[in-house]
Amino acid sequence: MSARREDTRRRLFHAAVSLIAEQGFGATSVDQIAERAGVAKGTVYYNFGGKTELFTALLAWGISRLAEEMRAAAEAAPSGTALTEVLRAELAFIGEHEAFARLLVSEAWQTNQAWYATVQQIRNEAISVIGAVLDTAARRGSVPATLDTGVASSALFGMVLTVALDWRTLQPERPMEEIHAILVQLAQGMVSR
Amino acid sequence: MSARREDTRRRLFHAAVSLIAEQGFGATSVDQIAERAGVAKGTVYYNFGGKTELFTALLAWGISRLAEEMRAAAEAAPSGTALTEVLRAELAFIGEHEAFARLLVSEAWQTNQAWYATVQQIRNEAISVIGAVLDTAARRGSVPATLDTGVASSALFGMVLTVALDWRTLQPERPMEEIHAILVQLAQGMVSR
Repeated sequence: MSARREDTRRRLFHAAVSLIAEQGFGATSVDQIAERAGVAKGTVYYNFGGKTELFTALLAWGISRLAEEMRAAAEAAPSGTALTEVLRAELAFIGEHEAFARLLVSEAWQTNQAWYATVQQIRNEAISVIGAVLDTAARRGSVPATLDTGVASSALFGMVLTVALDWRTLQPERPMEEIHAILVQLAQGMVSR
Repeated sequence: MSARREDTRRRLFHAAVSLIAEQGFGATSVDQIAERAGVAKGTVYYNFGGKTELFTALLAWGISRLAEEMRAAAEAAPSGTALTEVLRAELAFIGEHEAFARLLVSEAWQTNQAWYATVQQIRNEAISVIGAVLDTAARRGSVPATLDTGVASSALFGMVLTVALDWRTLQPERPMEEIHAILVQLAQGMVSR
């Protein structure tokens, strides 16, 4: 994708997320999204086809970025700290993209939506980053061989998502590092042998 | 509330949840909900006032039932098994009321909805059942005194919700007891000293 097209998509993404957060999906029009993003309405239809396709693409784009940041954090982490760094990446992403995270939570488990299959698939990519970290740790003997790493990675992903949104909603004044330290304490207990 | 009125509310609850799961909130009318529940449309307006109030009341009613079942499980549990039984109650409720759980996930973190404050408050009641179990365990010395039981209870609640919905979506053939055993293994690691 060209840098210009990528920039257009990024602007449409932020415009759509903020409008939907303010007024809901149903009340948000392609006109409004295009206007806030500063692009022509035709550009939206040219790039996506319509509102549902735009929304599906934007959910997919956002969660792909989350998965990429989690994967990059795992790869850059010093030995033995991959889980700590992956959870930090997830928490930081949600803290920085709170409105998107709320959208994601509200749509990722809605089986009746057009974007369900797409969102589910990419969400599973993010979860599988945690799964790969746990599988590596299991091979090294630092998590129990009996651990169901599939269920455990879904549990860890959901734990961070819930705690992160509660943090932003109920205690936004607490520093992220404090929340991260608690999550790491909980996660290490969950999966350590 | 009279038994008859309670029965009417229960039928409206199931009708609304199934219709919204099938076609979304926006596409569901009071007419359809009343028809599926087998009550007169006037009864809906008499009891609730309108669709938004009906939906708020139904979300509140459902999550209150979840909180009650979790509380009853904690109270009935033999000493030392309260956390195990509370997590089982949450998992079982989601397994039995899957469509409702999906609605709850999609609405509980949407700050732009009319029902946000209500849902948030009652959701916190369910989480505080877990918090009370952890606080009791901390006083008895079976969880670390340094544990932030507020964050830990939100983490446990979210972990069960995510894992339960993934179970229903991805592996519905696995018995609940198997999923419960994994959750208990994870949870006990999280909070045990």
